[in-house]
Amino acid sequence: MLTISDKLPLEGVAPLLCAGITTYSPLRHWKVGKGTKVGVLGLGGLGHMGVKLAVAMGAELTMLSHSLSKEQDAKRLGAHKFVLTSDEAQVKTLTGYFDFILDTVSAEHDYNFYLGLLRTNGVMVCVGAPSVPATVPAFNLIFGRKSIAGSLIGGLPETQEMLDFCAEHNIVSDIELIRMDEINEAYERMLKSDVKYRFVIDMSTL
Amino acid sequence: MLTISDKLPLEGVAPLLCAGITTYSPLRHWKVGKGTKVGVLGLGGLGHMGVKLAVAMGAELTMLSHSLSKEQDAKRLGAHKFVLTSDEAQVKTLTGYFDFILDTVSAEHDYNFYLGLLRTNGVMVCVGAPSVPATVPAFNLIFGRKSIAGSLIGGLPETQEMLDFCAEHNIVSDIELIRMDEINEAYERMLKSDVKYRFVIDMSTL
Repeated sequence: MLTISDKLPLEGVAPLLCAGITTYSPLRHWKVGKGTKVGVLGLGGLGHMGVKLAVAMGAELTMLSHSLSKEQDAKRLGAHKFVLTSDEAQVKTLTGYFDFILDTVSAEHDYNFYLGLLRTNGVMVCVGAPSVPATVPAFNLIFGRKSIAGSLIGGLPETQEMLDFCAEHNIVSDIELIRMDEINEAYERMLKSDVKYRFVIDMSTL
Repeated sequence: MLTISDKLPLEGVAPLLCAGITTYSPLRHWKVGKGTKVGVLGLGGLGHMGVKLAVAMGAELTMLSHSLSKEQDAKRLGAHKFVLTSDEAQVKTLTGYFDFILDTVSAEHDYNFYLGLLRTNGVMVCVGAPSVPATVPAFNLIFGRKSIAGSLIGGLPETQEMLDFCAEHNIVSDIELIRMDEINEAYERMLKSDVKYRFVIDMSTL
């Protein structure tokens, strides 16, 4: 059984049980805290929760995105820096910079490019799953003792811990509340990544 | 400056400064200790140090090797179990078994096969570097929150710590001491992996 604080609007809590715990669990497992240099790759449903949670944990947060249109939103969500991943010169300034990268991207991308942004003992955690396998030369992990890992939601005790953390820090998911009869339109928009950042169905409209 | 205990024979200490620290450092970093289920993949210069050190740290150690001829030696070095990686039925009994796998193999091999042997939160650390990149579907990391990492020797303070640990536990490398004029023959044997487990040159024969 999970207990949800009265302080939080239920429609914003719903996605916490998926995107929330999926990002909270690895941040906790790898001990992200005050001053940890965290990069969040990709600003979607998972990424926007990653930003909110890591910032609330005290991280120094950089949003890594291929789309300049995400900059304003990233800053609003709490990111301290925004780096356009297609701008090579900007990205180069981050070589060996991050303690932790939360990779939320499900589209194919080059893991080695981001492994290069990790400092010694840095960890990159994938919560998005591209259909194409990661191809990583061992030396990209050996130099700097870097890790690439994955993570999948979390158990009930940690989900409760996440809900309590969100209540304490006044965190919910950014959502668009829809009626049941809007579900087809919402589905089409979701396919185009046109949602900020999760659709939630008002079940009273069923 | 490093201090070497009088208790240890110098010729056996020499390889500790490479194979010793290369295996000691990741075992410590990932907190291998009493009861940790450790698999060491490959029994060569690195692997034989991995076995000795992990066993001295209290690990429950399984040697993973493709060669049955290594079984006796693995047990002599302290391994509690020996599993032939070419024996599919044997390997299957280890699915989800290990907390930590030390992968010392430099020949091409399938990382996913060994990731399957890790339990939840398990870590596989590569200290060997195949010429072919690892190809890992993200889902093989996401399910069970598994990590694949690399590691490269260690700094001076940790090297001293390793030397002190070896003195305390009476650990040196198994070596074959050769004269300088045997170096060509030793080189040819090394290419065939015919060495137990490091050649050391007696510099007084120079």
